[in-house]
Amino acid sequence: MATRADLANAIRALAMDAVQKANSGHPGMPMGMAEIAVALWGEGNYRHNPQNPHWANRDRFILSNGHGSMLQYALLHLTGYNLSIEQLKQFRQLHSQTPGHPEYGYTEGIETTTGPLGQGIANAVGFALAEKLLGQEFNRPGFNVVDHRTWVFLGDGCMMEGVSHEACALAATWGLNKLVAFWDDNNISIDGHTDKWFTEDIPGRFEAYGWHVIRPIDGHSVEAVLKAIEEAKTITDRPTLICCKTIIGKGSPNKADSHDSHGSPLGDAEIAATRAAIGWNHGPFEIPADVYAGWDKKEAGEKWESSWNQLYREYSKTHPELAAEFERRNAGRLTADWAQVVKTAVAEANSKAETIATRKASQNALNAFVPNLPEMLGGSADLTGSNLTNVKASVQLTREADNSLSGNYISYGVREFGMSAIMNGILLHGGLRPYGATFLMFSEYARNALRMAALMKIPQLFVFTHDSIGVGEDGPTHQPVEQTATLRYIPNMNVWRPADTVESMVAWAHSIEETKTPSTLIFTRQNLQFQTRTEEQIANINKGGYVLRDAANPKVVFIATGSELDLAVKAHEALAAEGVASRVVSMPSTNVFDKQDKAYQASVLPAGVPRLAIEVGVSDFWRKYVGLEGDVLGMDRFGESAPAPLLFKEFGFTVENAVAKAKAIIK
Amino acid sequence: MATRADLANAIRALAMDAVQKANSGHPGMPMGMAEIAVALWGEGNYRHNPQNPHWANRDRFILSNGHGSMLQYALLHLTGYNLSIEQLKQFRQLHSQTPGHPEYGYTEGIETTTGPLGQGIANAVGFALAEKLLGQEFNRPGFNVVDHRTWVFLGDGCMMEGVSHEACALAATWGLNKLVAFWDDNNISIDGHTDKWFTEDIPGRFEAYGWHVIRPIDGHSVEAVLKAIEEAKTITDRPTLICCKTIIGKGSPNKADSHDSHGSPLGDAEIAATRAAIGWNHGPFEIPADVYAGWDKKEAGEKWESSWNQLYREYSKTHPELAAEFERRNAGRLTADWAQVVKTAVAEANSKAETIATRKASQNALNAFVPNLPEMLGGSADLTGSNLTNVKASVQLTREADNSLSGNYISYGVREFGMSAIMNGILLHGGLRPYGATFLMFSEYARNALRMAALMKIPQLFVFTHDSIGVGEDGPTHQPVEQTATLRYIPNMNVWRPADTVESMVAWAHSIEETKTPSTLIFTRQNLQFQTRTEEQIANINKGGYVLRDAANPKVVFIATGSELDLAVKAHEALAAEGVASRVVSMPSTNVFDKQDKAYQASVLPAGVPRLAIEVGVSDFWRKYVGLEGDVLGMDRFGESAPAPLLFKEFGFTVENAVAKAKAIIK
Repeated sequence: MATRADLANAIRALAMDAVQKANSGHPGMPMGMAEIAVALWGEGNYRHNPQNPHWANRDRFILSNGHGSMLQYALLHLTGYNLSIEQLKQFRQLHSQTPGHPEYGYTEGIETTTGPLGQGIANAVGFALAEKLLGQEFNRPGFNVVDHRTWVFLGDGCMMEGVSHEACALAATWGLNKLVAFWDDNNISIDGHTDKWFTEDIPGRFEAYGWHVIRPIDGHSVEAVLKAIEEAKTITDRPTLICCKTIIGKGSPNKADSHDSHGSPLGDAEIAATRAAIGWNHGPFEIPADVYAGWDKKEAGEKWESSWNQLYREYSKTHPELAAEFERRNAGRLTADWAQVVKTAVAEANSKAETIATRKASQNALNAFVPNLPEMLGGSADLTGSNLTNVKASVQLTREADNSLSGNYISYGVREFGMSAIMNGILLHGGLRPYGATFLMFSEYARNALRMAALMKIPQLFVFTHDSIGVGEDGPTHQPVEQTATLRYIPNMNVWRPADTVESMVAWAHSIEETKTPSTLIFTRQNLQFQTRTEEQIANINKGGYVLRDAANPKVVFIATGSELDLAVKAHEALAAEGVASRVVSMPSTNVFDKQDKAYQASVLPAGVPRLAIEVGVSDFWRKYVGLEGDVLGMDRFGESAPAPLLFKEFGFTVENAVAKAKAIIK
Repeated sequence: MATRADLANAIRALAMDAVQKANSGHPGMPMGMAEIAVALWGEGNYRHNPQNPHWANRDRFILSNGHGSMLQYALLHLTGYNLSIEQLKQFRQLHSQTPGHPEYGYTEGIETTTGPLGQGIANAVGFALAEKLLGQEFNRPGFNVVDHRTWVFLGDGCMMEGVSHEACALAATWGLNKLVAFWDDNNISIDGHTDKWFTEDIPGRFEAYGWHVIRPIDGHSVEAVLKAIEEAKTITDRPTLICCKTIIGKGSPNKADSHDSHGSPLGDAEIAATRAAIGWNHGPFEIPADVYAGWDKKEAGEKWESSWNQLYREYSKTHPELAAEFERRNAGRLTADWAQVVKTAVAEANSKAETIATRKASQNALNAFVPNLPEMLGGSADLTGSNLTNVKASVQLTREADNSLSGNYISYGVREFGMSAIMNGILLHGGLRPYGATFLMFSEYARNALRMAALMKIPQLFVFTHDSIGVGEDGPTHQPVEQTATLRYIPNMNVWRPADTVESMVAWAHSIEETKTPSTLIFTRQNLQFQTRTEEQIANINKGGYVLRDAANPKVVFIATGSELDLAVKAHEALAAEGVASRVVSMPSTNVFDKQDKAYQASVLPAGVPRLAIEVGVSDFWRKYVGLEGDVLGMDRFGESAPAPLLFKEFGFTVENAVAKAKAIIK
């Protein structure tokens, strides 16, 4: 029978061999965390079913130090997931299931994409929060149908990143006791021994957050790790950090405890020396049957899941409505009457014809949709009163004396990146649909989390208000110029910048209905003129761009978004008064418009008619629609601190200027 | 004679009145930190000269909670800076010296632009590091010509932001004992009382970093603050955090201790009530003479500076070469032989004709330039061996047993945002020229600090390597697609993506020579083909774009950057072999090219000749050059994990494809 040392060494061997074969990768971390993995995965503490990676109540495992991906691939392979030894041999090769970093959607059993440091632990906080909230919502006496842990591996790099600070502070605030993190404390990062740049007292820091901290244990003693895990399980009111002293590249006679083992293959000679040193007498990618047997969790996983399935069957009988809702939510299905709710809400917004700030229009949309979708879990990075992301149905998330959490609206504090990465974890968990807000400017603090949502193809909902010089007096530090354009450039991101209440309503509905694409919803601080539309025009908002005002044989086409749409309409009217025919295209989402068929696009933007784009942001973005012959009324400099109406005038966003620019391009 | 209470209330009154007049702003913070300001500025602890805001050895004051800008404007006005009461009345108005947030370059005495939370404290760490390093370099026995403190005000928001974690950890690592931060501990942020989202033990956290923490004192007792300041001055080996318990909006009978005073005017009635409550019987913007006299620091400032001037005169006599260097560095002047050094380095790169990775070419440039510029202070966010930002002259920054720091190269750890914001502080201090690096992907973690450098018009040097799918096996989490384009959209940012050793050398020289514009230098992981050039072509690199290969009457113009330039050259050659004339334009910096005169631009990109842009990034960016008639060989999706050469082929970056696309647009 395989010993624990054999199990750990199997990981070491697979990591060394795969990295060597790929001639690329990070062997040091898997070799250093092998015993921790044995304690967590090998000893049955991690509750999962390799044959059903989608079991709703599985534990979640997050590899925040994602460069150590071979650790996770080795574990998935060894415990019985659908990940063959051939795939391990294809580590880091094109279209393999074993990319350089763990990627959600590529490999069964990968819960989130990691690699950009610090975000994994932040995702994990989101997973653990989702578990806690769903447990409170769906569990009933005798039926803990949501009851699992979230386990995280993280390294020194994650600890240094600011996002770990933001997320870990909140994990304690929320009392997430089922979150257990293993810190790979090896004193090595890429630049070498960390003593010159990583001197903080991590246990002290995490105790300051309010975590339970298990002080340095020997990370190479499976016994010690098991003991720590047992201790963590007894903690009922706070997350646990287990500080594991490890040696990076452990087992390698010449490269252990050195950054030489961090991010490069060990080399054939050192691998041979390591094999000898650890007593691993098997060829590359050869795992003896007893080691496979020692790791195999197919049978255990079946038992864990079937036990839960039995519980769930009883639950379904006793609480059929809850069970139906639980299943709908986990499947990510909208409600049966969703389409009707949207139709009613859009019609109501249209009939009300309000001229209000689109942030307020967004709040109206949320008020229409949130009551229909109890999975919606709102929040803001300390700007609720400005973002207007709270609704009548919102209850601020509050930790009660018994460590339960009440509420459906999260005050994330001034933590934009943490909020966004936590939201990604919540959404990946399933069962909840987070949305979170800050000022558009501070999308920059969170930017890589937005990209990660797009990369993972998850329909995240990012809300950004105060979208331009319309911010006014707060000045250029708070006035977006390039942000909207740059967000549109993220692949697989839908950016919406609605122009009034109706477009805001449709933008929200469209974004909620997405299943593979995150949305960025951009709203104004200031009031925007309501625009009248036909039913067909309202229907076409969903296409991202459509003709709002027209005339026979237009000589010029205005393209505008958000706060500039009304300016385009007024310029169109001014031209009409002079007998010049023009068209106004509203383009609330360029990303969605770009997905329409060419015929529709050409019907909106006819060839041969010059185009003037108007948007209070970088002008170059619009060249893709106006070409070199058209023009752009944009903004290519930083703003100023002043009342907003003065700024729009100062920077040329006037009807006169729009008309002049339009005339200049008419052929 | 004015009492301390009068001095504090003058701040309260000015803050209330200015915010009310502007009908916009944040009165709560100035009213809450008024006594702390009295202790620091009023009692002569802050050493500055209001009549010479540029005195080299002044203390630095950073308002990290920049929304409380009226506090700083009030202090500048009251202590004697060139900031009139009229300007205070113009708070937040167009072109005033009193914008909504403190802005560097707008107002004398403002050391850095703040508002985006957390970055002020990170800037301050940079200021304090610069002071320490310059002191060690320039001070001599009896001549402490660099010897000042950096004082910071910061609030709960700054504490929550991740960047405060990154920067404050490093402040302790570096033993910055002249850095003193006052935490405005008022338990209020915009969403209200912070107990639901801000529960960490701040003193414990900062002690874990290694700071000296002065536990909660009464922030409304000038005596208590003075005592804490005296204690902080005795600390010789670590920064100090003074935790000041305060009441936001203190003095307002009905809005103190409430977020109602945070970000909105108090209203006329409440201002009247506050005046009565605090006993301030003066009209709006009226400050009695004795209060002015109590605050005035013109005389004290003159004394402080003249005492230093005397010391410096002696220093200049005793150490004339050091003094000359000190003055050159503070003035931001390059060396006398700089132009020659550049000329030689470019010529050498050209004659060597090496085909190497541009990150290596960047290292060659640094090796050529750093020895000539001792002010260069390099660094990397834990990727030195990958970024290749270290040079032969680099010595890793190390804290010695006596708390001194040796070295000119900083291992910032995995802290991209902290690094970039600290770099901004170092550069703003004067005397040093930082440069810092990470992977291009992780520019996203730091993005708002890059924008802040551009907004402040400081010639920062940001280095980003691993610039595309050329990263290869690490996969899409590490492969930039949209990053280069989005960085180019930051106003006043020069982005460079050089194609070989010579372009890399010129890009570095150009960036170092900038005085008002930050630069982003983007380099490859993989080798890039050296290109031969004439002297005129080499000279034209400085124009951002130039003709590299040509033929009579070209039928198509290729525009390419970085790793795609050689592909364009090969396509040009393939077309030539078929008898089709084409031109190749190398465009290492679109931002710099856009600043050239129209005649030059037209000479490079002649009207009427179709254009094909080639860059392994989002294609829409290039429509500004190719229009709708041209085409782009770009990349509009996320990458994959695989060896880089396979990826370039997979995504269509082949000569065949480039040729086919070129032919398709030839008229």
